[in-house]
Amino acid sequence: MRLKASPIKGTKDYLPEEMAVRDYVQNIILESYRQNGFQRISTPILEAIERLDKSEGGENLSLIFKILKRGAKLVLEQPMLAESDLVDYGLRYDLTLPLARYYANNRHLLRTPFKAIQMGKVFRAEQPQKGRLREFYQCDIDIIGDESFDAEQELIFVAGDTLSKLGFCDFVVKVNDRRILRSVVDSIGFGESEFSDVCISIDKLDKIGVEGVKKELGEKGLNLNSIEKLIEILTNNKLGELGLPSSCEFKIVESLNRVIKAANELSDGKFKVVYDGTLARGMGYYTGMVFEVVTPQWGFSIAGGGRYDNMIGRFLGEKTSAVGFSIGFERITSIIQESLLCPKEKISIAAIYEGDVFNAIKETTTRKQQGYSVTLLKKSKKIGKQLARLKEEGFDYVWFLGETSELKPLGGTC
Amino acid sequence: MRLKASPIKGTKDYLPEEMAVRDYVQNIILESYRQNGFQRISTPILEAIERLDKSEGGENLSLIFKILKRGAKLVLEQPMLAESDLVDYGLRYDLTLPLARYYANNRHLLRTPFKAIQMGKVFRAEQPQKGRLREFYQCDIDIIGDESFDAEQELIFVAGDTLSKLGFCDFVVKVNDRRILRSVVDSIGFGESEFSDVCISIDKLDKIGVEGVKKELGEKGLNLNSIEKLIEILTNNKLGELGLPSSCEFKIVESLNRVIKAANELSDGKFKVVYDGTLARGMGYYTGMVFEVVTPQWGFSIAGGGRYDNMIGRFLGEKTSAVGFSIGFERITSIIQESLLCPKEKISIAAIYEGDVFNAIKETTTRKQQGYSVTLLKKSKKIGKQLARLKEEGFDYVWFLGETSELKPLGGTC
Repeated sequence: MRLKASPIKGTKDYLPEEMAVRDYVQNIILESYRQNGFQRISTPILEAIERLDKSEGGENLSLIFKILKRGAKLVLEQPMLAESDLVDYGLRYDLTLPLARYYANNRHLLRTPFKAIQMGKVFRAEQPQKGRLREFYQCDIDIIGDESFDAEQELIFVAGDTLSKLGFCDFVVKVNDRRILRSVVDSIGFGESEFSDVCISIDKLDKIGVEGVKKELGEKGLNLNSIEKLIEILTNNKLGELGLPSSCEFKIVESLNRVIKAANELSDGKFKVVYDGTLARGMGYYTGMVFEVVTPQWGFSIAGGGRYDNMIGRFLGEKTSAVGFSIGFERITSIIQESLLCPKEKISIAAIYEGDVFNAIKETTTRKQQGYSVTLLKKSKKIGKQLARLKEEGFDYVWFLGETSELKPLGGTC
Repeated sequence: MRLKASPIKGTKDYLPEEMAVRDYVQNIILESYRQNGFQRISTPILEAIERLDKSEGGENLSLIFKILKRGAKLVLEQPMLAESDLVDYGLRYDLTLPLARYYANNRHLLRTPFKAIQMGKVFRAEQPQKGRLREFYQCDIDIIGDESFDAEQELIFVAGDTLSKLGFCDFVVKVNDRRILRSVVDSIGFGESEFSDVCISIDKLDKIGVEGVKKELGEKGLNLNSIEKLIEILTNNKLGELGLPSSCEFKIVESLNRVIKAANELSDGKFKVVYDGTLARGMGYYTGMVFEVVTPQWGFSIAGGGRYDNMIGRFLGEKTSAVGFSIGFERITSIIQESLLCPKEKISIAAIYEGDVFNAIKETTTRKQQGYSVTLLKKSKKIGKQLARLKEEGFDYVWFLGETSELKPLGGTC
């Protein structure tokens, strides 16, 4: 029986043209981050399941791909078998928990503060009908060990600068602070334990609307009138006009204002930074400022992040501040692909040979040294058909080896 | 309780210096492959477990990380629960099976013949005591749709050329043909079904020696005298002196000789190509020529591959020839790292600021545009200590922002 050839649902085969764009985008991001003094590191995709389970990742915790135990560790004959008896590892669902573990494990070998770049695959068992990928690429920068708002300011600048370099303009960085959000949520009368549910749902306000948020939180048993009041306050509040109870929170508002002002000046008109009282972000681990980048043309965020001062301490045993910004690589790449910003790294030559490949390899050496990409192809009996196909396949030039040293333009499509 | 910070066994955290080398090696390989007309594609890490199970991957089939089913698909309350009831996906253990599936799925969108580059992570549940990584990076090139020996010739050239560009010299490409091996194994009196076990064990001759091979195959019930005779023949035979029974096999020997001769001429003295009668390669899917690259200085192979003409047909329903070459990225990178070929992409400046980061970001813009990597750092109260640390951390220059525009060399270690 023939084996099925399509990839498993929620995953994707990338064609050469798509990989050219992905490599191009990755290189620009990596280059920009390195220029700004960030250093690339890498962590394993495989993570211990107990660490993933305790990672405060909001709804992502229910989307973890889990790895079956192996060999003698896997015992199937036992009463009341539970999922937890069967698995030891999982696939990372983001790059933040692995970074926290990494920092705790390698701190003595790293700079202080440590400015990290991470680029790699993450995995989430999303419902395929959502049209979301289950295996996708993320690009993060984080500053670890700087408790001041300098870290937020620098991250907003570097992420914005990088998005500009990728050709984005007129985008908006929305900012908020989890502590302001918490103080509003508290003032409505919700308890400590309800805050995380409120954040998860409020984060989807753009997508599911007021009714959606009410439905989600109502199902979790929260008072409907209070939810309505909360959304009302969050939607309409303006920074500086908040009736905040403590001086500590006034300080936060002041700092937030300062960061917004500075970031707008540094952006040099390339992007705007604004306060958004409804910005929550879904992860449970955020403790301070949160940010999200939206574009006027595309109805979804293209980057986001925030401060998470408690996560690393759970590994290290001492409080270690951290702020991160993640660029939505898949979304950005699909926008760049659709906008026909089509990068072509090299001029491509289809070099046609007859007989043995030996002479063809010899004859094409110089052109390769000159920087061309040379694809060797055996001459087909139907040369007209072959040329038509080479044109279709996107080659720039054809070169008949042995006959001429001339390159004939094919007018290849990009 | 504090969470454990070390990565799970068999996986690795990569430090910034290590990632710089890995990125450098990857770029050289990718650049060289693209220059030679190969095109990068990408396949998912997640694969259907039934495809992995049927992939003829030799001993790797017992090393597959398996993913637990999710949601309603996972039924734990059933009599005689088997592993196969619990899993639907697995992690790819190499890039060859995914490529075969990919080609069958996307053939109509690809060039003919298709010259593919794949670079990505693969996973094997190796015994940690072997010192092998369970999550590692592979770099493959394959030519699909060329049944002539041209494909082998080109792949040997391109792989050799790429290893040269990475600084390797004096390496040896060993070649053999599975059909010659099979004819010798047949002549000893082993049956069809024993051939795959023979290949798996003979492949380890370098590592486990004659006694090791005898032990492994003896345990599988093969006749000890015959094994000894087989090793004797394989070790001592010379191409052209083989007592091969059929004219078909003489043709193979002739072609092998021709490929070796051509490859040696094309290598331009940078590497040697030789026949090795004991070369088997462990994978079950090889059908023709096999190759392996060894270096005089390092006691293991650094690249290998071969022809596998039957795999794609199992997806496509029609025979499709294919040859592949895989560079052992992890081994190569560790050699390059040890040989102190230390790439540094940018000159790094530690830019020290006081007060707010805002002015620091502004002041350093020009230097970044000039191509420096600029790391912003808040001035410490103990500046002497801070400078000593910056030197230790490998920065090239220190720059006191606000005071001077001068860069002071730190003599950072590479």
